[in-house]
Amino acid sequence: MAQKPSIPKGTRDFSPLEMARRDYIFTTITEQFRRFGYHRIETPAMENLSTLMGKYGEEGDKLLFKILNSGDFMRSVQEEDLQTRNLPRLTSEMCEKGLRYDLTVPFARYVVQHRAELQMPFKRFQIQPVWRADRPQKGRYREFYQCDADVVGSTSLLNEVELLQLIDAVFSQLGIRVAIKVNNRKILAGIAEVLGCPEKIIDITVAIDKIDKIGLEAVEGELSSKCLSAEQIEKLRPVLNLEGDNASKLAGMQELLNCSEEGKKGVEELRFVASAFDSLGHKAVLDLDFSLARGLNYYTGTIIEVKALDVEIGSITGGGRYDNLTGVFGMPGLSGVGISFGADRIYDVLNALNLYPEGLSGASRVMFVNFGEREAMRAMQIAKNLRENGISVTVYPDTAKMKKQMALANAEHIPFVAIIGSDELEAGTVTLKNMTSGEQQTVSPDKLPEILK
Amino acid sequence: MAQKPSIPKGTRDFSPLEMARRDYIFTTITEQFRRFGYHRIETPAMENLSTLMGKYGEEGDKLLFKILNSGDFMRSVQEEDLQTRNLPRLTSEMCEKGLRYDLTVPFARYVVQHRAELQMPFKRFQIQPVWRADRPQKGRYREFYQCDADVVGSTSLLNEVELLQLIDAVFSQLGIRVAIKVNNRKILAGIAEVLGCPEKIIDITVAIDKIDKIGLEAVEGELSSKCLSAEQIEKLRPVLNLEGDNASKLAGMQELLNCSEEGKKGVEELRFVASAFDSLGHKAVLDLDFSLARGLNYYTGTIIEVKALDVEIGSITGGGRYDNLTGVFGMPGLSGVGISFGADRIYDVLNALNLYPEGLSGASRVMFVNFGEREAMRAMQIAKNLRENGISVTVYPDTAKMKKQMALANAEHIPFVAIIGSDELEAGTVTLKNMTSGEQQTVSPDKLPEILK
Repeated sequence: MAQKPSIPKGTRDFSPLEMARRDYIFTTITEQFRRFGYHRIETPAMENLSTLMGKYGEEGDKLLFKILNSGDFMRSVQEEDLQTRNLPRLTSEMCEKGLRYDLTVPFARYVVQHRAELQMPFKRFQIQPVWRADRPQKGRYREFYQCDADVVGSTSLLNEVELLQLIDAVFSQLGIRVAIKVNNRKILAGIAEVLGCPEKIIDITVAIDKIDKIGLEAVEGELSSKCLSAEQIEKLRPVLNLEGDNASKLAGMQELLNCSEEGKKGVEELRFVASAFDSLGHKAVLDLDFSLARGLNYYTGTIIEVKALDVEIGSITGGGRYDNLTGVFGMPGLSGVGISFGADRIYDVLNALNLYPEGLSGASRVMFVNFGEREAMRAMQIAKNLRENGISVTVYPDTAKMKKQMALANAEHIPFVAIIGSDELEAGTVTLKNMTSGEQQTVSPDKLPEILK
Repeated sequence: MAQKPSIPKGTRDFSPLEMARRDYIFTTITEQFRRFGYHRIETPAMENLSTLMGKYGEEGDKLLFKILNSGDFMRSVQEEDLQTRNLPRLTSEMCEKGLRYDLTVPFARYVVQHRAELQMPFKRFQIQPVWRADRPQKGRYREFYQCDADVVGSTSLLNEVELLQLIDAVFSQLGIRVAIKVNNRKILAGIAEVLGCPEKIIDITVAIDKIDKIGLEAVEGELSSKCLSAEQIEKLRPVLNLEGDNASKLAGMQELLNCSEEGKKGVEELRFVASAFDSLGHKAVLDLDFSLARGLNYYTGTIIEVKALDVEIGSITGGGRYDNLTGVFGMPGLSGVGISFGADRIYDVLNALNLYPEGLSGASRVMFVNFGEREAMRAMQIAKNLRENGISVTVYPDTAKMKKQMALANAEHIPFVAIIGSDELEAGTVTLKNMTSGEQQTVSPDKLPEILK
C-alpha cells in the first residue's frame, strides 16, 4: 500500500548542495580543532537515562527523547502506575535509554568512565547530532549538530586564550566578521556582592542583559521590581554606563569591585585573557561585556559568546569555564573550559551573506556524454585515469538523448562536459566543453588531468 | 549523588586513536564516492514508524528502536490494550517515531519525497549510523555506521561496472586484498526454472551456498530434504561442480541454462559486467560465484559481495541491483543498484593486518613545553604562526614539572617537542626534540614550518 512519505517534524533531510555546504563548515571547524591540538572522540547516540536525567533541569528531562525498551517493555510496569497514568514512573519503567541532549554530559560521562586511560590535560572535540523534543520553530530543530571543543584538567587561562584564537581562526577562515563577547562569572558575583545581595546575582544579571534592548530606565524598573533598593540601583549605575574601550571598562569595573575579592579576581582574569589575546593578534572584535550571563548556573569563570556582525541572528558560538563537570559522576574538582560552535546558525549566516567558496556544489568536475557502448567504454577508460588523479567524474550511464544528458550536467552544475563521438573515438581525442564560458576544445585525453584540476 | 557511569550495551565510545582510524576509513570511502560522481545526502536519525515498519520483515520490526512520544504518551492508549498488554498495539499508540535501521529505506523515502527536485539518474552516497536492537555479540553492535552508494533511475550495467571499480579503488587505497564475488539473481531463477521448481529458488540457493562449508554430499542431502528428486539433484550437479576461470564458469552455466530465457539473460548480464570490469583493469580478484544469494528477496539482477583475502571475517561490503526500491512509497518501477561498505568490519580488518598509515594518531605534530608565563607567551606566538601554516600544535597550558609535561607528549605520541627556556627566550630560538630519534636541534622559529611539515 502506498504511503505518502514524510519525516518527523523538526527534523530535516539534507540535499547534495546542502551537504556540500555543511561539509564545508564541519571541515573548516575540524581542521581548526586539530590545529589547536584537540582530539576527536565520539560517544553513542543513546545514553542510559540515568546518565541524562536530572542534568538539564526539570524542563530538560521532559525534552529528552526516550527509547522504549526492546522486547517486553511492559515487564516492569506497575499496575498502580498504569491506573494513575503516572507518566514519570511509567517512563522510567518502560525506558532505560534516551538520545543525547548535548555533547557536554556525554563528555563528562566519558571522562569519568575512561579516566584510567586519559592523560590530563585532555583536549577533546566532538561533532555529532543531538536531539531535543523542543517545539519546532524557525531555526530550532529537534535534531541538530553541535561542534564542541573542551580542555579538562587544566586551570590555566592560556586555555581560554587559545579558545578565543580558535574562534578567531574559524570565523576568519569562513569569512564571517564577528564580535567575541567575554565576561567572567566572578565579576557578576562581585557586583552582587558589592550591592550586598549575592543571592540576587541571577536577577541582576538578567536585568542588565536587557539594557541594549529596553534601555537604562526599564532595566532600573526591573531591578526595582526584584526588590533592589534605590540605593543599590544607584550603586549599580556605573556598571550600566560603563563605556569606552576594553581597558577603560576594566579599570571602571576594578574600581567598582574594589571591596570584593571575588570580583577583583574576575577582573584580573578577564584582563589577562584579553591582553594575551590582543598581544597575539586577531581579526575578531573583542568586546568585554559585563552583562553577558550565558549559562550562569554552570560557568564559574570566563564566559564567551560570539555574534555575527553582519547578520541579525542569535549567538553563533558560546562557551566558558566550569569547575565541576564530572562531580555528578563521582569525580569532583575537575576544571575545564570549552566552546560550542552552532553549525546550523553558522550555516544560516553563510547563506545570508553568500560566503561559500565558488564551485562548492559537491558536483563532479566533468561529465562524459554517452553516445553508445563503444564510446562509453572509451569514456570509462579515461574516467578511470582521471579518478586515479583525484578528479571527480560522472559517466552518463545510459545512451540517452543528448538533451536529457545535458540536463543532468546543468542540474548538477557540473563545470565541464566531455564528448566522445565517433570522430573522437577514431582520432583518440576528447572534446571538452566549459559549461560556464561555452568554449570547446578537442584535446588528447592525456591533457585532461591538467585542464580539469 | 555519584553514579557509576556506563553506556548502553551494544554501543561504543571511540577514543582519539580509534577516531583517527575510523576517520581514515570514512575519508577514504568518501573520497572515492566523490571521484565516482556520487553526492552526499543525510537523512534524520528518527523516521516515522510508518516509514520503517513492515520493511524489514517481522523480525526487523521487533529490532527497531522506538521513541516514546513526547508529552502525554498515554494519550492515545486504549484501556483494552493495556489490560491485554498488547505490545504491538501499545507500541503504535505510544510511539510515532523510530531510529533508522538502515540507509536504504530512508533513501527510498527521500527519493519519493524529493522526486520533484531530483534529476535522474541520481547518484547518492550516505555515511551515517544505524541502530538495531539485536542481541549484542562480538562484532555486532546496536549502533554502527553504514556507508552506502546507490544510483537510481538507470538500468545500464555500466553502473554495476563502476560500482565494482569503486570497490576496487577503495580497497586498493586501504591496502586490503579482496575478492569481489558477483552473481546474478536471474541465474538463480534460471537454475530453479531448469529444475522445474521455480518456487524453490530460495531453498536451492541456500543449500548451494553451503557447499564450501559442508561439502557436496551434505548439500545434496539438504536438497533432498527440501523435496528435490534424485533426478533434479542429478541435473543440478554440474552447477555444484562448476570450476575453472570465470569464462569457463560462464560457458558452463550458459549451457546449463539453455532452456531458460531468464537464466540466459542473467549469464549475459554477468558476462558483460565481468568483461567490462576486466578490460578496464583492476587489482581485486573477481570471482563469479553462482552460490552467492545475499539479499535474495530484494535483489533482482547483479549481486555483489566482498571478502577480505587475508583475514577470516564475514563480508565487508555487499550490494546489488533492485527493481522496486520506492514502490512501497508509491513510486513504482524505479530501478537502482547500490553497495554498502561495512565500516566496522573494515576497521577490524585494518586492525588485524595493521594497515594504517604511519603516524595516524590524531595527535599534534609538536608540543611546546611550558616553563613559565613569558616563555609560554612566546610559545603561543610561534604556535599561532605554525597553526596558520596548517600544523597541529599543543602548547602545554600549565607550568608543570617537565616530567609531567613530557608524559603527555609520550601518551599522545606527539612526534616533536619544542622547548623555549630562558636561553632560547633570550636568543630568540627554539630547541626542537625529535621524539622518535631523540635528536635535538636549536633553530630559529622561522625554520619550524619547514621542519615540521
